[in-house]
Amino acid sequence: MILGTVKGTVYSTKKIDNLRGFKLLLVEPYYGDKEKILVAADTLGAGIGELVLVTRDEPTQHAIDHEAPIDAFIVGIVDNPPVMGK
Amino acid sequence: MILGTVKGTVYSTKKIDNLRGFKLLLVEPYYGDKEKILVAADTLGAGIGELVLVTRDEPTQHAIDHEAPIDAFIVGIVDNPPVMGK
Amino acid sequence: MILGTVKGTVYSTKKIDNLRGFKLLLVEPYYGDKEKILVAADTLGAGIGELVLVTRDEPTQHAIDHEAPIDAFIVGIVDNPPVMGK
Amino acid sequence: MILGTVKGTVYSTKKIDNLRGFKLLLVEPYYGDKEKILVAADTLGAGIGELVLVTRDEPTQHAIDHEAPIDAFIVGIVDNPPVMGK
Amino acid sequence: MILGTVKGTVYSTKKIDNLRGFKLLLVEPYYGDKEKILVAADTLGAGIGELVLVTRDEPTQHAIDHEAPIDAFIVGIVDNPPVMGK
Repeated sequence: MILGTVKGTVYSTKKIDNLRGFKLLLVEPYYGDKEKILVAADTLGAGIGELVLVTRDEPTQHAIDHEAPIDAFIVGIVDNPPVMGK
Repeated sequence: MILGTVKGTVYSTKKIDNLRGFKLLLVEPYYGDKEKILVAADTLGAGIGELVLVTRDEPTQHAIDHEAPIDAFIVGIVDNPPVMGK
Repeated sequence: MILGTVKGTVYSTKKIDNLRGFKLLLVEPYYGDKEKILVAADTLGAGIGELVLVTRDEPTQHAIDHEAPIDAFIVGIVDNPPVMGK
Repeated sequence: MILGTVKGTVYSTKKIDNLRGFKLLLVEPYYGDKEKILVAADTLGAGIGELVLVTRDEPTQHAIDHEAPIDAFIVGIVDNPPVMGK
Repeated sequence: MILGTVKGTVYSTKKIDNLRGFKLLLVEPYYGDKEKILVAADTLGAGIGELVLVTRDEPTQHAIDHEAPIDAFIVGIVDNPPVMGK
């Protein structure tokens, strides 16, 4: 998984049917290239500025109860910024 | 998912059978390295210049009703350019 | 998918059994980092210098009638070099 | 797989249900870009500073007995730092 | 697939059970960023210095007769270094 910071919301009216019902959030990577912002589906209610854990690719499907064309999913809201060596 | 801008169409007469029937669009990444243009299948009717949401890898298969060798699929047309912090 | 140019052939006598019967071609990415040449399986008869469409990862399996340890597959030969904005 | 060094622990109280029960560790890549720290699930009891082997994407599911939205998993603790040419 | 050169062996005593029985080799990419050395499972008996073909992600599973948490697998030993344009 990667850590990222929620930066905004993406709205899409015209979309694939089984993508409906998921909130789509812009997530900026916490480590590595911060410019590679991705869009992750969210069901945990993550808010702007929160640090989240994002799972990508096919394992995303194990977070939902029906298959959907989602390749990035917020699987956790991180309690505190990580501290190296702890 | 990633956000990208539709930049053109790719035509291929000689192709794998179960790829037929999908429009193939050139999509330029909106964030990160813009030179890494990819080709995404489209069934939503996205037009040149539109901002779209692209799902990659195996989750693409959940956007279609029969399996196809597609690893990038346009799953949504974005309403407005994203605004950070909203 | 990515666009790439066929640059050569890879020969392997000692290989996993269910990889037999596929031609293996060197493909240079058309967009992005051209040094990241990959090896893609081909059943369409793509020739050196031709522009092809390559699908990667697990969706490759939907291009073949039996599973094989292939993570890049040539799914189309492109008619003409792509033109931006068309 | 990639080799990486365990650098810390990530805590998340609010998370997807089937992610519960896994320890989540920060892992710094041993080769390549060390800034691309990732979060891997662990059941082997890897400690801070240990060198580990991390499997990513869908093959992670073959390390666990029930599916979970995990895309990076510690599948081995490495005995000694690798030596090139041996 | 990618081409790579075998550079060494990785030993791990404490590992996930279904990873046992596979030799784990360090493989240096032949094209692109050579620093991104990966660890690939091997059943073909590839030796140090040999050029190999590596399949990644879930398609690796089609090279083995039981599922294992392996995301890189040596699927062929290359006969000769590739020549561009042939």
